[in-house]
Amino acid sequence: DDSDDGKSTGGYGGSQAGEVGPVWLYPQTQLDCVVADPKKGSKMYGLKSYIEYQVTPNTTNRPVNHRYKHFDWLYERLVEKFACALPIPCLPDKQVTGRFEEEFIKMRMERLQGWMSRMCRHPVISNSEVFQLFLNYRDEKEWKIGKRKAERDETVGVKIFSTIDPELPEIDPTQVEQKYETYSQFSRSMDNSVKELLAVGHLHWKRCTGPLQKEYRQIGKAFQNLSSVFNTSGYPRESTLTEALTATGKTYEEIADIVAGQPKKDLHFLLETNNEYKGLLGCFPDTIGVHKAAIDKVKEADHLVATNKISQQDRHTMEKNLSTMSYALQAEMNHFHSNRIYDYNRLMQFYLEEQVKFYETIAEKLKKALGQYTTM
Amino acid sequence: DDSDDGKSTGGYGGSQAGEVGPVWLYPQTQLDCVVADPKKGSKMYGLKSYIEYQVTPNTTNRPVNHRYKHFDWLYERLVEKFACALPIPCLPDKQVTGRFEEEFIKMRMERLQGWMSRMCRHPVISNSEVFQLFLNYRDEKEWKIGKRKAERDETVGVKIFSTIDPELPEIDPTQVEQKYETYSQFSRSMDNSVKELLAVGHLHWKRCTGPLQKEYRQIGKAFQNLSSVFNTSGYPRESTLTEALTATGKTYEEIADIVAGQPKKDLHFLLETNNEYKGLLGCFPDTIGVHKAAIDKVKEADHLVATNKISQQDRHTMEKNLSTMSYALQAEMNHFHSNRIYDYNRLMQFYLEEQVKFYETIAEKLKKALGQYTTM
Repeated sequence: DDSDDGKSTGGYGGSQAGEVGPVWLYPQTQLDCVVADPKKGSKMYGLKSYIEYQVTPNTTNRPVNHRYKHFDWLYERLVEKFACALPIPCLPDKQVTGRFEEEFIKMRMERLQGWMSRMCRHPVISNSEVFQLFLNYRDEKEWKIGKRKAERDETVGVKIFSTIDPELPEIDPTQVEQKYETYSQFSRSMDNSVKELLAVGHLHWKRCTGPLQKEYRQIGKAFQNLSSVFNTSGYPRESTLTEALTATGKTYEEIADIVAGQPKKDLHFLLETNNEYKGLLGCFPDTIGVHKAAIDKVKEADHLVATNKISQQDRHTMEKNLSTMSYALQAEMNHFHSNRIYDYNRLMQFYLEEQVKFYETIAEKLKKALGQYTTM
Repeated sequence: DDSDDGKSTGGYGGSQAGEVGPVWLYPQTQLDCVVADPKKGSKMYGLKSYIEYQVTPNTTNRPVNHRYKHFDWLYERLVEKFACALPIPCLPDKQVTGRFEEEFIKMRMERLQGWMSRMCRHPVISNSEVFQLFLNYRDEKEWKIGKRKAERDETVGVKIFSTIDPELPEIDPTQVEQKYETYSQFSRSMDNSVKELLAVGHLHWKRCTGPLQKEYRQIGKAFQNLSSVFNTSGYPRESTLTEALTATGKTYEEIADIVAGQPKKDLHFLLETNNEYKGLLGCFPDTIGVHKAAIDKVKEADHLVATNKISQQDRHTMEKNLSTMSYALQAEMNHFHSNRIYDYNRLMQFYLEEQVKFYETIAEKLKKALGQYTTM
């Protein structure tokens, strides 16, 4: 939803009722960055080696360098600061062995890119001081000072809600509970569905690069062998057939390689995107749990006021906080949904485009082989 | 080779040297027949049931009826009469259980058709009295008299060579041996190659109708499940995505069925043709064995003349017979080669045409699914 009436203001954000309900306040231009150019660096006179990635934000267009452990540091800060309100997806896995291998570096870079783009797209996260530091520090000194400041940041955990101003009337806690149940259920269902897609995708990948490739190769070999046998017949004028048969055999060998190479072209992106969503969805139970705990606390409030454990004023603050938290969660869910629709629409289009090309390429190759036979 | 200079004359045939060496004398118009219209008949007041096929030759266009056991009787006659000179391919398997099931009847009819067409194409077999009787008998009486006559036929086994007049100079037995070795080796190699193709074909069939169909269905289900989950989001304006996702899922389910149904469309004919050739090639060792035995006998002839076991005249007859046999085998090999080239050319064209259609159909379906997504 890009219309203005649903935008929130103040602090990191807030929410106003739009068509979809409360939404974050989105910036005019969307932040993004490019993670590229992995370089091997070393420390302690070459005793310690590491890979450094170049991160270039679209705002400054000025690259900064970061190692994996810096991303991990940023991730830790974001979790501390925001995880009560927002699901912060995990970084790509740490890996100790093989981490200087080209294939691994490429894969990690691609995943760090995905993670950073997702963080940049989030109006609350991308606007935070620590995130801005990560993208924009000018030198080692600024980075170190900024790091120390971020590590001492006290606006973490549930305190994050105090920085959000919904600019909307307080919500009745009973309305909130139902919404949370819907969110819980949706994220659980989607988690299952994403895992199903991942499972069948992995299976298909294995079949394409394993038995299917082998089988198409065998078919190719069988045609070529038959052609070789025919060549020994001593019978004249069968060279057209044997040449066409050989070409057919070679075509099936090519198809074997196309089949085996295809998952990297399309299934890879499907699996990567779903893996990202699996990680994201895995954070939902904890985030929603924080909100549910707040509801339980407000429910207890009557009793606590009666036994003089808290004042009426405290109780009102709790209710006001719950309302803010609820708006924040709704804004976050709306953020999630709009991103989900965008991501899956793009993913499916890409996947199907590649699949169409795949089948068309094979049809073309077979047509060419067919053209080598003569009509008798 | 259709030119006249290689044609043989006399008896069932013979041979003259053409471009490819000796060839049978081929008729002006080629005999063929249609095996169709299987009908259940019964005997003994319904106690015994059987299936009767209608066989219509292109010469008379008048259908005759035959049960499987009649075909089997014809096969036995052809083996007795011709197997020394010509490989007579086996009939499709007998089967006791399930022989009234539609699928089985259709399959058997198709194979009887293939066998009959191959027999019709053979100038020596198709010209024989017993084969003509099978196709042309006018009533039960003519059939029964003809049957009895055929069963009493004495021109069987090696005697068949006496009916062949090569009209060509006698060949030197030493030349013959080398040729036979070539034929043996070719038929062995082709037998292996055909068996390889059959093995990989069966494997591919199983994969298409088994794991591959299952996997495409799972992919289809996974997309549809994701669509169902998305539908529960409560987020507005995602119906385009969920409808497109559902369509994609259904498309993959259709692809599953297309993949599983494809072997019947193309692999079936490839396997049937190669099965026929496997049967045919299985007859070669015996047929060639008869010829090799004749060579061995001629080799012994010098010794037999010296020890007065046979006369010089006998020896000359043996050499003349060997020459005739050799021309017959060469004509038969040339017949085999020209049919082989024709059959495999047609087979491969058909197979590739169907394969092209298969991949194009899938590409078209995926393109249609792709068209349902909106570009954001």
